[in-house]
Amino acid sequence: MSRITYVNGAYVASRDAVVSVEDRGYQFGDGVYEVCEVYDGALIDEARHLDRLGRSLKELRIEAPVNPGALKVILREIRARNRLSDGYLYIQVTRGVAKRDHVFPDPPVRASLVVSAKAIAPEKGEAAARKGVGVATMPDLRWKRVDIKSIGLLANVLARQDAKEQGAYEAWLVDSDGMISEGAASNAWIVDQSGAIVTRQLDHSILRGVTRTTLFDIIAAEGLRLEERKFSLKEALAAQEAFITGATTLVMPVVAIDGVKIGDGAPGPLARKLRALFHLAAAHSN
Amino acid sequence: MSRITYVNGAYVASRDAVVSVEDRGYQFGDGVYEVCEVYDGALIDEARHLDRLGRSLKELRIEAPVNPGALKVILREIRARNRLSDGYLYIQVTRGVAKRDHVFPDPPVRASLVVSAKAIAPEKGEAAARKGVGVATMPDLRWKRVDIKSIGLLANVLARQDAKEQGAYEAWLVDSDGMISEGAASNAWIVDQSGAIVTRQLDHSILRGVTRTTLFDIIAAEGLRLEERKFSLKEALAAQEAFITGATTLVMPVVAIDGVKIGDGAPGPLARKLRALFHLAAAHSN
Repeated sequence: MSRITYVNGAYVASRDAVVSVEDRGYQFGDGVYEVCEVYDGALIDEARHLDRLGRSLKELRIEAPVNPGALKVILREIRARNRLSDGYLYIQVTRGVAKRDHVFPDPPVRASLVVSAKAIAPEKGEAAARKGVGVATMPDLRWKRVDIKSIGLLANVLARQDAKEQGAYEAWLVDSDGMISEGAASNAWIVDQSGAIVTRQLDHSILRGVTRTTLFDIIAAEGLRLEERKFSLKEALAAQEAFITGATTLVMPVVAIDGVKIGDGAPGPLARKLRALFHLAAAHSN
Repeated sequence: MSRITYVNGAYVASRDAVVSVEDRGYQFGDGVYEVCEVYDGALIDEARHLDRLGRSLKELRIEAPVNPGALKVILREIRARNRLSDGYLYIQVTRGVAKRDHVFPDPPVRASLVVSAKAIAPEKGEAAARKGVGVATMPDLRWKRVDIKSIGLLANVLARQDAKEQGAYEAWLVDSDGMISEGAASNAWIVDQSGAIVTRQLDHSILRGVTRTTLFDIIAAEGLRLEERKFSLKEALAAQEAFITGATTLVMPVVAIDGVKIGDGAPGPLARKLRALFHLAAAHSN
C-alpha cells in the first residue's frame, strides 16, 4: 500500500507530497513539529501534543493553518488512510511560502501544514527496552530556545549520528556547566543515590516532553519521589538507574553512559515499572 | 517574466519549484546555503562562495550533488534565464530525501540542490548607505556552530524581526560574555578609539563572511590597520565608526546602536571609503 500524506489541504501519495522551495521551513527552518505515538490504533497523549504545538506556534507568532478540531480530523484521516495501528503521526507547521527574507512575511501568508504516518512494529521498542540502551554524551550545541519544538534540528542530527557511530542508541547533551540538558530526541532521567527520580526542570534549555509530563502523573499516582532539578554527568554515572522518555521511545532504560555501566548494567526496576505503567496512563489521559 | 529556479536537475518556473516534504532540509534544517551577489551581471566573489559552500558541506559530511564546474554552469544558466543584472543568486544544498530519522541516511542519498535568482535595484542599497542604518542588540540565541552556513536560521529570523520592530535595519547579536558576535545576517565591525578597524576573529561563533574576507584584502592594500578581536557593546557605543558587511549589504555604515548615535551619527569616512572600494576589489578577485 502506498503511503498517504496530507499537505496543505490535500491527501496525496507520499511520493507526490511536495512543498515550494520558498517554503520558510525549507529556507529558514521557520516551523515546528510534533510526533504523536499511535498504539493499537489510539493516538497517545493527543491533547498534550496539540497543546504543545499551539504553544510552539504562539512563541513563533505563527497562526495555526487549521483549528484544533480540523487538525484532529486530519490526524484521524491520515491514520485511517495509512491503516496505521502502531507507529506515529508526524505533524509539521511552517510559516508558509514567501519570497526569501528573514523577517516575517508582511502581510502574513497562510502557514503550511504537513501530516504523515509511519508504522513501527511495537516489538522493536520492547526488545530494546528489555536489554536497555547505551547513551553517549557530547556538548549541547543547540540554540537557546529548545523549549520551542522547532524543525531546526541540525545539532540534534549531528549528535544522534555521533552517538550511532559510537554504538549508542541516543546522545545525552551536556551544557556548558557540565550538567545534562536532555537527549537529542528525548528527555533524560536518573534514579539518584537516594532513590529519587530526577529530571531537569523546565526552562529554555529542554523540551517540555509530553511523555515526561504524563510520567509525572504516573509517578505521583504511584507515590514515588520526584525531583525536578539539574544533574551532572558525574551524578548520572553514579546513579542507581537511568532512562530516557519520548513519544516513540516511551520509557527506555539506559544501562550505560559513554560505555560505563549504570547500576548493574541491566534495566532498573523503576524504569521497567514506569514503562509498564505508561500506556495505561496515556490512554486514560487521551 | 516568470522567474526560473533550478531544482535537482531541472529548470522550472519558480511557482513549480518544489521539493519532497521528506527532504531533510524541510524536516531537520539539514542543509546549507550561499548567497552570491550579482553586480552589473558579474558574480561577485563566486570562487570564495563556492569554497565556503564546500567547507559547509564537508563539515556536515554532505557530498556535493554536482561538481563545482557544473554548479558554475547552473549559476550562469539561472542568471541568464532570469536576465539577472543586479541582485543575487541563492544556492541551497540539503542532505536529500529520506524517511524521517535523525541519523544520516545509510546508504547516503543524493543531496538536493536548489538555485534561484532575485533582482534588487542597486540604488536601494546605495540610498541606505548614504544615510547609514541603525542596529538593535539582542542576546545571541543561535547554535554553537554558526561557522557552518546552515539553513537553520530561526534564531536569525527572530532577531531580524525583533530588529525590524524596533525600527532597526539589522540585529547585532551579543554573546553570553557581553561581546558582539556578529549581525543576524552580516558581520559586525567598528573603528575603535585608536582608529583601528576591528572585527571578531574567526571561531565557531561567527560566519566566515566572504565580504569580510574580501574587505581584509582591501584593508591590507590600503595600508589600513586591522584588528581581529572581540569587542563589547560598550566599546562599540564609544567607537568612531561602525559598519556591517554581507554579500547583499556589502559595506553598510551603522550610524546608531540601540538608538545611540555612533560618532556624529553620519556614515563614517572609513566605512564610506571601504564601500566605494569594495566592488572594484571583488571584481578583481572573481
